[in-house]
Amino acid sequence: MIPPRSLIFLLIPCIFWISLSAQTTEEDAKVIRALYNQALRDQQGYKWLEQLTNIGGRLAGSPEATQAVTDFALVAEKLGFTSRLQRVKVPRWERGQKETGYILVRGEKRTVRLCALGGSVATPEEGLTAEVVEITDFNQLDSVDLYNKIAFFNIPMDPTFINPFFAYGSAVKQRWAGAVEASKRGAVGVAIRSLSSSINKYPHTGSMTYEGATRKIPAVALSTYDAEALSDALEEVPGTKLHFKTHCTWHDSTYSYNLIAELRGSEKPDEIIVIGGHIDSWDLATGAHDDGAGCMHALEAAYLLKEQGRLPKRTLRVVFFMNEEFGLNGAREYARIAKEAGEKHVLGLESDAGGFVPRGLSIKTNDSTLAQIKRFRELLEPYGIHQFFKGGGGADINQIKDEGIVLIGLRPDSQRYFDLHHSELDVLEQVNPREFELGSATLAAVIYLLDRHDMIGQ
Amino acid sequence: MIPPRSLIFLLIPCIFWISLSAQTTEEDAKVIRALYNQALRDQQGYKWLEQLTNIGGRLAGSPEATQAVTDFALVAEKLGFTSRLQRVKVPRWERGQKETGYILVRGEKRTVRLCALGGSVATPEEGLTAEVVEITDFNQLDSVDLYNKIAFFNIPMDPTFINPFFAYGSAVKQRWAGAVEASKRGAVGVAIRSLSSSINKYPHTGSMTYEGATRKIPAVALSTYDAEALSDALEEVPGTKLHFKTHCTWHDSTYSYNLIAELRGSEKPDEIIVIGGHIDSWDLATGAHDDGAGCMHALEAAYLLKEQGRLPKRTLRVVFFMNEEFGLNGAREYARIAKEAGEKHVLGLESDAGGFVPRGLSIKTNDSTLAQIKRFRELLEPYGIHQFFKGGGGADINQIKDEGIVLIGLRPDSQRYFDLHHSELDVLEQVNPREFELGSATLAAVIYLLDRHDMIGQ
Repeated sequence: MIPPRSLIFLLIPCIFWISLSAQTTEEDAKVIRALYNQALRDQQGYKWLEQLTNIGGRLAGSPEATQAVTDFALVAEKLGFTSRLQRVKVPRWERGQKETGYILVRGEKRTVRLCALGGSVATPEEGLTAEVVEITDFNQLDSVDLYNKIAFFNIPMDPTFINPFFAYGSAVKQRWAGAVEASKRGAVGVAIRSLSSSINKYPHTGSMTYEGATRKIPAVALSTYDAEALSDALEEVPGTKLHFKTHCTWHDSTYSYNLIAELRGSEKPDEIIVIGGHIDSWDLATGAHDDGAGCMHALEAAYLLKEQGRLPKRTLRVVFFMNEEFGLNGAREYARIAKEAGEKHVLGLESDAGGFVPRGLSIKTNDSTLAQIKRFRELLEPYGIHQFFKGGGGADINQIKDEGIVLIGLRPDSQRYFDLHHSELDVLEQVNPREFELGSATLAAVIYLLDRHDMIGQ
Repeated sequence: MIPPRSLIFLLIPCIFWISLSAQTTEEDAKVIRALYNQALRDQQGYKWLEQLTNIGGRLAGSPEATQAVTDFALVAEKLGFTSRLQRVKVPRWERGQKETGYILVRGEKRTVRLCALGGSVATPEEGLTAEVVEITDFNQLDSVDLYNKIAFFNIPMDPTFINPFFAYGSAVKQRWAGAVEASKRGAVGVAIRSLSSSINKYPHTGSMTYEGATRKIPAVALSTYDAEALSDALEEVPGTKLHFKTHCTWHDSTYSYNLIAELRGSEKPDEIIVIGGHIDSWDLATGAHDDGAGCMHALEAAYLLKEQGRLPKRTLRVVFFMNEEFGLNGAREYARIAKEAGEKHVLGLESDAGGFVPRGLSIKTNDSTLAQIKRFRELLEPYGIHQFFKGGGGADINQIKDEGIVLIGLRPDSQRYFDLHHSELDVLEQVNPREFELGSATLAAVIYLLDRHDMIGQ
């Protein structure tokens, strides 16, 4: 029974599948199993994450951020890496004393939990008090009078996005550009609803800009719980005021460092595989998920390959990038110097979506390489890695523009991420050791497969 | 270009794929999207889970367990279900006062955290004190002298299983049968290492048996942290003693209830779809994951279908089974009565693996129905449901033996489950609302698809 001609094209995926079986050897499966076994047994990366978070929050330019790269340069040296610090100029902003605030309803003060946005100017010493205008959609901006008011952007993350990163993406404008839009319309301050997937009492900070603003007005984030309370109060009593006091300071730019830890390739030392995360974090917690987990994923992936005697043929470089949160300075400087030196990067991997259970890979390459990489799916599915899709690698590694470079971002499950992202909840206790370790092993397995089968740098 | 004959068999999956595309209509995708949207927006199931856990722990035969079914009978009635309570005889065991214990090393007392296993007899009033013999493998049993000793089973869950349920399965014998094996060899008590995937200070309870024991000896679980400490002490000082005091009581069997809440089918009322979880829980916490989440998944799945105007053609029955933990009495009674009444069950769904992010379905049916169900994968993958595998439905629904019944178990990610399972950590705060809600919507979507396309009861 010969199939009709029109069906022949359907054979194409089947033929791919055959070549997959030929390539994915039993040995690959064994190596991958050994990488996961060691990660789950030793939990070495989680121990490093504990060491890192014990240093504290790591805002770029802070002593803690610099301590993190120097401490881990020593860790890497002891493991047999050649490590060095790469100087990076970074902005230096400090939150200062804890912020305070209250809603003023008919003379009654109702305390709210809020924090300054990263990069905001401080309020006057006595704080800022003004009537509030609520904005629930950017399109309302031209129909409201913000003069001498506090603009209150209250735009929730849409809960119906299955991937909360998309919900974040669609709501983050209020944080990044709220002050610009409000200042243009004469507002004296801006308060946003924290970008959180849940209603709780923790304010979430994050970066903002004044680029295009007519005046630098103080900007804060209210916890989602308090944003709801303020909205209710405004409905109850129009003219309700908000008071807040922040103490942040902009210092002169300063110097900090990227950490670069290298294991030279045995066969193709001039081809570089880079794996990294960003070592800076927000200051409200210890950046355990964002992005302590990513840095430790990177270091542990390299460590696992070394321990298992499966280092790539190419040079493997672990990079802790400095200052992703406040302008990507570290990643840009790394890419600039690498280009100047004529280095050839063939593969870049990044973990910057938390230390949650890994579910897939976002891959930036041409269609033919992508199709080849997807054929490893059957080797990784037993470890819960089901998603292989075209997408960006990550904010830091995306700065490396070498021709033919394959960029891969680890994609963990992110249902819990925005509950704690940029808030005081981003601490070690929120990272499950097994979930975290599965991420390290996945990255190690991907490096092993792509290097061994030369599915990079084409 | 005609493919060689030997390749023709490869067309088979392609042909399946074609029929899939014909069947999975745009309308199906819209209905599924609406089910998830409502779950994620309203989080009604999570609110019910809060109501349920506020009642407290729900050990079978306890007033709390009975209150749970009566309270939710009312909830279901208000939603328009016809609800009734089905009487079930259940064992009645009580923990009593909190347990205490210490290791006695050279006269020094080192406090340990432990709890009685479910079903254990109490120690004498003054407690039990005896030398300890550590057992790390059941094969050692015939080469150790347990006479007048406390048998200490210290067999960790193997961390290299990717699915912790398998690690649990391979280590649970020490809890279930430890007392039997120890008593046969003259031991006076048994202490096991808690079945936990992590090292922490929380003891984990769970069921045990004396069937086959020569004597009923008291049995406790040490926290994993304290099991390690006891093991270290034994290595340091052979002859180290353990002391513990437990206060549990066996009462006469008593009566409690299954809750059955029904929505009659519009076209095929005599064909029954049952969806459930078990309403009883261990007493150390409030059974938020085990199995409060499963019951609320079931109720919410039915609620979502009703709210979206997508109730099945068949009768939909939500069942909260009483006493899964202590002998499956509720499920057995349900199945017995259903059989007696000549009812025809065509589909059974169960959620009893926690309220974590759903990743797949375990399906018990014949190969041809399984292949048909798998064709819905593309409709569910956008919601993170990637795994469709042959396996059991769940301990409770597996009791229903109707011919042709399709049984489906929800399979959430379980990396965190055994950190909290059967311990005081199994509380509402450990359930993430989004992760939980995705489970409810998934079950609703599966019922919708299988009923609509008649892929059941063949």
